[in-house]
Amino acid sequence: MPKISERAVLMPSSPIRRLAPLAEQAKKRGTKVYHLNIGQPDIESPVEGLNALRQIDRKILEYSPSDGFASLREKLVGYYDQYQIKLSADDIIITAGGSEAVLFAFMSCLNPGDEIIVPEPAYANYMAFAISAGAVIRPITSTIEDGFALPAIERFEELINERTRGILICNPNNPTGYLYTRKEMNRIRDLVKKYDLFLFSDEVYREFIYTGSPYISACHLEGIEQNVVLIDSVSKRYSECGIRIGALITKNKVLRDAVMKFCQARLSPPLLGQIVAEASLDSPRSYAIHTYEEYIERRNCLIDELNKIPGVYSPIPMGAFYTVARLPIDDSDRFCEWCLKEFEWEGATVMLAPASGFYSEPNLGNDEVRIAYVLGKEELKKAIRVLAKAIEAYPGRTTK
Amino acid sequence: MPKISERAVLMPSSPIRRLAPLAEQAKKRGTKVYHLNIGQPDIESPVEGLNALRQIDRKILEYSPSDGFASLREKLVGYYDQYQIKLSADDIIITAGGSEAVLFAFMSCLNPGDEIIVPEPAYANYMAFAISAGAVIRPITSTIEDGFALPAIERFEELINERTRGILICNPNNPTGYLYTRKEMNRIRDLVKKYDLFLFSDEVYREFIYTGSPYISACHLEGIEQNVVLIDSVSKRYSECGIRIGALITKNKVLRDAVMKFCQARLSPPLLGQIVAEASLDSPRSYAIHTYEEYIERRNCLIDELNKIPGVYSPIPMGAFYTVARLPIDDSDRFCEWCLKEFEWEGATVMLAPASGFYSEPNLGNDEVRIAYVLGKEELKKAIRVLAKAIEAYPGRTTK
Repeated sequence: MPKISERAVLMPSSPIRRLAPLAEQAKKRGTKVYHLNIGQPDIESPVEGLNALRQIDRKILEYSPSDGFASLREKLVGYYDQYQIKLSADDIIITAGGSEAVLFAFMSCLNPGDEIIVPEPAYANYMAFAISAGAVIRPITSTIEDGFALPAIERFEELINERTRGILICNPNNPTGYLYTRKEMNRIRDLVKKYDLFLFSDEVYREFIYTGSPYISACHLEGIEQNVVLIDSVSKRYSECGIRIGALITKNKVLRDAVMKFCQARLSPPLLGQIVAEASLDSPRSYAIHTYEEYIERRNCLIDELNKIPGVYSPIPMGAFYTVARLPIDDSDRFCEWCLKEFEWEGATVMLAPASGFYSEPNLGNDEVRIAYVLGKEELKKAIRVLAKAIEAYPGRTTK
Repeated sequence: MPKISERAVLMPSSPIRRLAPLAEQAKKRGTKVYHLNIGQPDIESPVEGLNALRQIDRKILEYSPSDGFASLREKLVGYYDQYQIKLSADDIIITAGGSEAVLFAFMSCLNPGDEIIVPEPAYANYMAFAISAGAVIRPITSTIEDGFALPAIERFEELINERTRGILICNPNNPTGYLYTRKEMNRIRDLVKKYDLFLFSDEVYREFIYTGSPYISACHLEGIEQNVVLIDSVSKRYSECGIRIGALITKNKVLRDAVMKFCQARLSPPLLGQIVAEASLDSPRSYAIHTYEEYIERRNCLIDELNKIPGVYSPIPMGAFYTVARLPIDDSDRFCEWCLKEFEWEGATVMLAPASGFYSEPNLGNDEVRIAYVLGKEELKKAIRVLAKAIEAYPGRTTK
């Protein structure tokens, strides 16, 4: 039997995927499982998108252009303009979700052995795409004590060497909910400029900012227009994770031409998803407002309830729909497993994402979990009550 | 401005993509362009698939499982069973088109520097996916004189060294239309067994076999079940290139687990495409028969007409919907460009794929073009008449 590749061995297995069969077993036992582990919103997709599907009168479901439909890219220009991101349709390449945008960005920018610096905790799949490209992620730890703010810029500089090719940020952040300030973004800009790095900026949660703080996109930063690669997706803002429509956006023409070679190799992004995404851009402001208000209520409810649990601490997330909370537990992997295998309270348990999966440094996040607030307020309250009971009953509870 | 990666530089630009703007310009001048260059069938997609779209009553277009819906995979088991390919649903991983299946197969099986042997002319994007994985394609040339039959197995053995990890075939073949015989498939099997190689077999054209010859799938070969990776797609058989639904199929559990890590990183295959593909599997036998009969007529018409043109030779393709023909021209890239830029006859011209793009060996295919018979018979006849006139008028016409 021929051997699999070394990169396949290196590829991370998502801790959530390891927990999934346990959740299935719990459900089979009749236990209700509150899913606080995933980034799949329960909000309905815009009716404009759903209606567009039903109105498709094509007879042939044919290839679309490798960079996506011009009509979708042109409509996106208007969308970004609302956020003072000034683009032309040519700057936008449609991808199969934000995932493919990250993969193609890494493939086009990074040689095997090249390094990028990523503040962590970070979305686990960045690591997977870096491994796919043979690149190395150099993590810089942000801490719950600092509310997961951007680590000191000196710590970035310490890591920079001749193999450093870029910095990756997620803003608003998954998993922490942190939103970078103007001051922090300017520091990143200066660093990127000084060392002529790529700045990969994943901003798929821009609709979900709950404080009065301004949203500073990487595309707002002056003087590094040729360095910025914006990663985007309609998945979260329209609750359309399944249609696999994202975008890679850059003003750097040489880079776009490189990315297009990868796009042409895979022929085209999903046709049907593009039709839905384009129609969803016509959803009224009320859709966005309703979604926003729903999340802001959930967030307040979640954080209040969490911080009432003895020994639990969560900073207030400024954006996205996650928080990373510290629990009084010995090991979050073990705790999350235990919740699904051995615990229930009034017929229910919770599924959480152990935060260890968001750190590449070993032994970090052992007492942290990521909680996604993708459930309605009442459900969320019940779920947090179950979580409190679980912490109380957990044999590995610590006293700190 | 930071530099793009070396692999991005190496990635091929499709010659067809280079011709596309010329075709647009020709159309703007009012010239009708017969598209014989692309693999996008003009046949309608099955109504079962189109209806399924209109009946989607989901409120949330959410993530599907990373390996695709179980219901789709189970239905595919029955589909493959018709071809005496015996699978369980677990053997099947749904991908974003056959393209993603090739990429994930290479990513999971090949280390940077590893080699695979590919008979050519071959589908140009294999090279792109090999470059993405850092792997090296070692080509073996098949020739138009031999009707593009499998080259002697000794020529494969000459290329095998300690870096050789696999063989890739496309059967029925794009671009040549060749169908490997049982004898040829057995030779491949013996070689794969002897050197414990992966056998990547792209069989997306199995519906399109026009001779009485049997379809021998790589999955039919005994004793190499752990070595075979089947690449598949619904794009061609249901004229659904745009929905991006393919599959990677292997009985090798270790490999499947590796591939799943790449699948999990990109979260899920397209939701809507899966719904359409699953419904399309319910299309009646009459759909397949109608499609088949249409292509067989076109093929006969095309090959007859082509071989009537002085100096032109095309073998009779046994499958798929392409042929590689030899033309009496100096340079197929130049000829294809000239057709779009400088030629028209009765207000029309043709767009063809220069065969040079299907060879990685330099200076091969210079007098060959790939012709896709994806037009109706009458259109096809007119197109070939235009092609004959173009060859007559072409300044670089040769006399051989």
